[in-house]
This record gives sequence, structure tokens and C-alpha cells, in this order.
Amino acid sequence: MTSRHILLNAFTMNSVGHINHGLWTHPRDRSGDYTRLDYWAELARTLERGLFDGVFIADIIGVYDVYGGSVDLTLRESIQLPVNDPLLLVPAMAAVTRHLGFGVTANINADQPAIFARRLSTLDHLTNGRVGWNIVTGYLDSAARALGQAGLAAHDSRYDQADDYLDLVYKLWEGSWDDDAVVADKARRFYSDPAKVRRVVHEGPFYRSEAYHLSEPSPQRTPVLYQAGTSGRGQLFAARHAECVFITATDKASARRQSDALRRAALDAGRRAEDLKIFVGVTVVTDRTEKAAREKFEDYRRHASPEAGLAHFSASTGIDFSRIGLDDPIAYGASNAVQSTTKLAKDKGWTKRQILAELAMGGRYPLIVGDAAHVAGELESWIDEAGIDGFNLTRTVVPESYENFIDIVVPELQARGRYKTAYAEGTLRERLFGEAARLPTRHYGSRFRHLRN
Amino acid sequence: MTSRHILLNAFTMNSVGHINHGLWTHPRDRSGDYTRLDYWAELARTLERGLFDGVFIADIIGVYDVYGGSVDLTLRESIQLPVNDPLLLVPAMAAVTRHLGFGVTANINADQPAIFARRLSTLDHLTNGRVGWNIVTGYLDSAARALGQAGLAAHDSRYDQADDYLDLVYKLWEGSWDDDAVVADKARRFYSDPAKVRRVVHEGPFYRSEAYHLSEPSPQRTPVLYQAGTSGRGQLFAARHAECVFITATDKASARRQSDALRRAALDAGRRAEDLKIFVGVTVVTDRTEKAAREKFEDYRRHASPEAGLAHFSASTGIDFSRIGLDDPIAYGASNAVQSTTKLAKDKGWTKRQILAELAMGGRYPLIVGDAAHVAGELESWIDEAGIDGFNLTRTVVPESYENFIDIVVPELQARGRYKTAYAEGTLRERLFGEAARLPTRHYGSRFRHLRN
Repeated sequence: MTSRHILLNAFTMNSVGHINHGLWTHPRDRSGDYTRLDYWAELARTLERGLFDGVFIADIIGVYDVYGGSVDLTLRESIQLPVNDPLLLVPAMAAVTRHLGFGVTANINADQPAIFARRLSTLDHLTNGRVGWNIVTGYLDSAARALGQAGLAAHDSRYDQADDYLDLVYKLWEGSWDDDAVVADKARRFYSDPAKVRRVVHEGPFYRSEAYHLSEPSPQRTPVLYQAGTSGRGQLFAARHAECVFITATDKASARRQSDALRRAALDAGRRAEDLKIFVGVTVVTDRTEKAAREKFEDYRRHASPEAGLAHFSASTGIDFSRIGLDDPIAYGASNAVQSTTKLAKDKGWTKRQILAELAMGGRYPLIVGDAAHVAGELESWIDEAGIDGFNLTRTVVPESYENFIDIVVPELQARGRYKTAYAEGTLRERLFGEAARLPTRHYGSRFRHLRN
Repeated sequence: MTSRHILLNAFTMNSVGHINHGLWTHPRDRSGDYTRLDYWAELARTLERGLFDGVFIADIIGVYDVYGGSVDLTLRESIQLPVNDPLLLVPAMAAVTRHLGFGVTANINADQPAIFARRLSTLDHLTNGRVGWNIVTGYLDSAARALGQAGLAAHDSRYDQADDYLDLVYKLWEGSWDDDAVVADKARRFYSDPAKVRRVVHEGPFYRSEAYHLSEPSPQRTPVLYQAGTSGRGQLFAARHAECVFITATDKASARRQSDALRRAALDAGRRAEDLKIFVGVTVVTDRTEKAAREKFEDYRRHASPEAGLAHFSASTGIDFSRIGLDDPIAYGASNAVQSTTKLAKDKGWTKRQILAELAMGGRYPLIVGDAAHVAGELESWIDEAGIDGFNLTRTVVPESYENFIDIVVPELQARGRYKTAYAEGTLRERLFGEAARLPTRHYGSRFRHLRN
């Protein structure tokens, strides 16, 4: 069911702090250079040297204001604030690479569908088919208020809205221009064939539009679709739309439950189990020897901020942990963040003291510390035991955490036959799935081809 | 009143056809490469070699469907369709240049203010302060329908909406973060100072928002503001907001009337006449000798499409010229495009035959054909007689039209002391105005600094 080769994304954000909070204070950390183009270009070159499948760029359009009821710690520790636009990094990173893929996060509430469809088509053109979209419906009240809404819509209604949004962008990406619509024949003065381009008409419950897609067909048309929702409704959404699913799990058994459920849902939706590539977020600290790796970890953790990690966790769960005693039982029922259901179920009976201990590196992702053999073995066992396809590798101290992984772990995985030794040719979708550049016909989005008004 | 040095933007669009329609069919024209990053990177390098102040990237988010009541000719001749997102070109062009400015067009109906504010701040960071925004309120019914609106709002109401949009983005750009809010002190674990970052609250007639600006202060904060409206209401808008104004004029006298009116309006708004840099769109065809330039022009015009130019003009004026006889009087009163008022007043009494004759190069911009001395002399006389500051140089056959201008005209202008011989240092605003990187205090937007909730 899983790929022979482990798939690998670098997990990052156009910000200082991302997952492992506090590490921006490490003397060697350069995440404060996030406003510089050359920083991102260098990162892209590094990742392509390491044969990473992609860089996955997270995003939020609100702020974390649950912990202590303010943004004070968020600002002091730069907990995903400031955060700049992720899409604008892609052209500069694509210009210096040939194969690296780009998974960009975009909230459906941020952009109108027709405008967003063109934006992604533009990126797919400019990258020659290397773009993926991480579909986000939003979970922050502060984001809704920034956009002039009274507050966040109900969870399931957000997925209904996302379904409608997807229907419209599929029509634009898949249905507005035929494959052979662009002729570009200079001698005949014939750029596009009007008989092969059509206006999309959409009247959905949330969106309406009458529009020609403004972009001519790009290599992939629909970008590779990523999604991260693991609630019941989120799984239904993923089963219909997602090609790559990003899950968070603190142990392999939890990841196994999620991946099994997702693949069953995909089968129920008429797709194949392997039509979903499932990625787990992990943190790796490695060095040439076990001892050196442990020492590096101890050095890193002295710069990490468990409290900042807790503030981030407050925003994810809606629980203000600043008001909870170290050993009080956590009233997880108070959470309004449905995305965290699975995590909270597991957290049952935990105390803040235990959570803080897990946040030694400032983030709650599974932590693997060790030399090449140890890390490679752990990653293999995650793949095999959890039934997943790959990893979103968080950053710790950048860029050295990527460089260490590439120089130390990648050769070991290659020696074990678990990692590619060269990129395959083709678009991101072709490389991930070994099939065509466009959505397969068994994907829901393919039904929007050959629209006729 | 005008600068000693002529200001110069390359005027382009993320599309095949832009102003001089039909020239994409010229054997040497490469505008069909617009989907390639290396095409844009090469163009940026060329323009920086020529010391261009900026590249001004036009945009539309609708289609031209007035001529013949369809998009048929629009598609066949690629009259700004397909058209890709302009902002995504900037990071790739900025990565290979140090001084070139970027004027990007964005319609206020396309993006929500808080999201857009972050997008432009991101670009201002990544370009190190080289970004301008061409504020567009939209004039195409097809764009409104693409966004799910019943149709285009009334002209003056669009400017009221734009005023409200600007108030909100000023608050985010100028008021949300103090200059010294970002400390980034690793030893003290202190990235931003919560006492110096505040939430913006906006309750306007069109927009409401409660938001922290997501981006830390960028070099210019508010990007350099461009605007192109020249109606009465448009002039009022420009007088309040614009720093650069792009006007279209078929002769110097008309340009003079517009520039005088704009500068008067700026004075009335408490600004200086020279606070507006005024650019006129022109088309130049040049070569080493007058004879070679004339021959090049004859070669180009054989590939131009006056009919495509007419279809574009139909969209600008709302008049379907396909239904009008060559020598019939033009019922310009039928126009619903208020932006074109000044142009149509001038066009009074014209016939389609005369308009087609003016469209020899496929576009209606003033055409200057000749050797270095002739072109330089004409540009100087436009500057001096029309009271303007510079030009938006349209493309004809690309990239050679830019290369010709740089190799032939620029040295002549430099010899005459009318063009810089090196870039000044600093942000785009500093280079254009010789003042600070941020809006001057006499600009309306500056009053949104130091907000207190």
C-alpha cells in the first residue's frame, strides 16, 4: 500500500517561528532571514540537493490569541506572527530548482475562487507543473474577524463551503479550456480557438460565478491537492478531494488509525487506497554519532520554548493553558477546536506538566534523535507500522537541520533502498503518483472536464 | 515642476497581447514565453541594464467581450486573454535585480484588504522596498460577474469603495506596528514588543476588519501608490492617494490638460505639485538610422492587428465597433465606460476608419518612430510641453523593443542630461522622490500612523 520510497517534504512557513518554538533564539538559527529572497533560494537549492519531493509551506491568516487572552507571548516569541504570504516565495524558489515541488497553504476564506484559480494556474505555469495546494478552511476566530466576518462559521459548514469552492475552481481548471484550445499559430494569427474555450457558470450554495478561466491550461491544471483535516467531516472531504493528506500523530498507533480510516474513506469514494499519499509531521535531530546527536538535542532544547509551544497548542485547542495549574486535570471538553478531536481524545487525563514535558523542543511533533541508522530505522518503522507514505520534516535550527538530514540521513535511507537516488522527470503529480500530470479520471475533480454550457 | 531626469517604466502584462495587438505573430516576438520564469528574469535583467525605474505590470480580471458581443477575437488574437497573475512575477524578477522597481496592478475587488495588505508587505520585504501598487477599481462587467456580483457598481461608488479600502490598508501598513516594534533580540528571547503592535479596528461603509497586520514593517510600509483614473472622481482619488499617475493621451496638449488638472488637485489636497509623478504611455520603434527605424516600423505593422486594437478599444468604451460602418459617425454617447470620457470627448466626430488608421500598430498610444536623436527629442518635448515626468514604454516586439530602446535611445538621453547614468540607492519611493522610504507626512496615508485603539 505504501510507496517503496519514502516521500519527503520540508515543512516550513514564511515566518520566524513555526512548529518548534523558541529555536529562533539559537545562535546558528537563520529563520529571522525569512524576509530575504536569497534565504529562500538557498533553502530551495539545499532541498533539491537532498532530493526532497517538496517544500510544504504552512500559513495562517489570523493570530494566536487564546493563551493568556492576548497576543503578547505570540509576539514576543514570534509564534507564527509575523507571517508573510507563502505563495510569493514559490517563484523565487522555482527559479533556482528544476524538480522540487511546492505545497502552498491557502485558506478558502482569503481569496475569491476565480482569482485564486488564476493564481494557482500562474504558479503551475511558472513552475512547470510543480505546485500543490494545501486546502484550508480556517479555524481561527481572529482570521474571520480580520476578514470582516462576525466570527468563525460552524465546522461542518466550513467543509460544505469548501466543497462548493472546489467545485467552482475545478470547473475553471478542468473545464474552461480544452487541451487543444491554445494553438499559438503565428502564421494563421490564431492564438486560442474560441470553439474550445468556454465560460463557466456556477451557482452553488456559497459561490456563484460566470467566468472564463483567465489562464490557459497549465501542466497539471488542478494543482496537487493537499489537505490536513482528520475530523469525520474532514476525512470525507479528504476522501473526495485530497491527493496528499498531512496528519499529526504523536505515535505510530494513532497514525495507523488515521491512515486506515483515510484509505477506507478513499475506497468508499471510488478511489484506490494508494490514491492518498499520507504524510506525518516529525522532528529529527541527527549527527554523525548517537552521542553527537544527543548533545545537539540538548543544545537545541536549551533554546526551545515549551511555553511558546503551549501557547500554540492553546490556539489549536481553544484552551487557555495559562489559566490551568500544572497538575490540574485538563478540561478538554471546553475545546472549541474540532480539528484537535483526535489529539484531545488521546490527551485525556493529561496534565499541563505532562504536555510541557512533551514540548521540550517547543513543538508537539514526534521527535527522533540519533545517528543515521537510528533515524533511518525510526522513519522506516513509522512508514511500515503506521501505513503512511512519508514525512513533513519540521525545521529546528535552520538551515542546519535540513543540511544535517540531507548529509546524514538521506544516504542511509538510500543505502536501505528507501529513498530515491535521483528525481523522476515530470510534474509533481507524475512524480508522486507515477501516473499522468492531470487528475486521474477516478478523482472527483475530473468530472468537471468537457463542460458544456 | 518636472524632474530633470525622465522617469521610465516598461509597461507590460503577464499575457501574450497587451497594447500593440497582433505583434505576437512577429517571428522574433517572444511574448508567448510569458509562462516561463526565465523569460521574466531575462526581461528584468535587461531593464536593469537600461536603468529603467520600474516595470509596470497591467492586469485585468475579466475578459473583453464587447466587440461582436463575444470573446472570439479576444481569444484568437490573445487580447489580454489568457492573462496570468502579475504579482507572482515579482519575486523572480526581484531575485535577479537590485534596483528595478515593480508597479503591480491589483483590483480592489479581487482581494480582501487584510489579505492584500499582507501580500504587498510580503513583496515589499522580498524586494527590499521596490514595490508599487497600481490601484484599480475595475471597469469590466465580466470581472464583476466572475466574482459573483450581478454586475459592475456605479463609477463613483467604486471610488468610494476604493477610499474605504485604502483607509483600511493604510491602517494595517502604517498603524499596526511601530517602527521599533521588532527587536529580534535572541539573548532576551524578545522578537516583537507587544506594547508596540496593535490591532486595527475598521468599520467603514464598505469594509470592516479587526486585525493585527500579519507582516512586520517592510522598508516602505505603504507601497508606492500608482493610479490611472482621469475622470473627475478619479482625479480626486489620485489627488488624495496617488504618488504616480499613469495617463493615456494621444497628444501633448491633452496630456498637458490632464497633468495640470492633476497637479492642481494635488495642491488642493494639501500636497505639492511635484508629489505626483505623471507617466504617459508611449510606443517607440527605433533603430540606428531613421531609414532603418522606418523599415522596422513597416515590418512590425505588417504583423499588427488594427482590428484587435479596435476590439480592445470596444471594451474600454463599451461601444461594439463591429456593428459600426467604416464611415458612420460614432455614437459615443452609447458608451458606458466612464473612464474613457476624456478620450471620447476628443474622439468626437471620428469614424471607425480614422480610428483603424490610428491603430496601425494595434494600439492607440502615441507612436514615436525614428533614430536616437528623433526619439530623444520627441520624449523631451513630451516631458516639457505636457508637464509630465516620464513614460510607460509599451512593448512591441519583445524583447527587442526594450533592447533597442536601451541600446539606442538611452545613451542619447544620457548625453542630453535627461536620463540617469546610474541608479540612486534606496527604496523605489526614495529613488522616485528623493525623500524618505515612507509616505511623506503631507500624504493622506500618513495620518494612519500611531493609531491607538
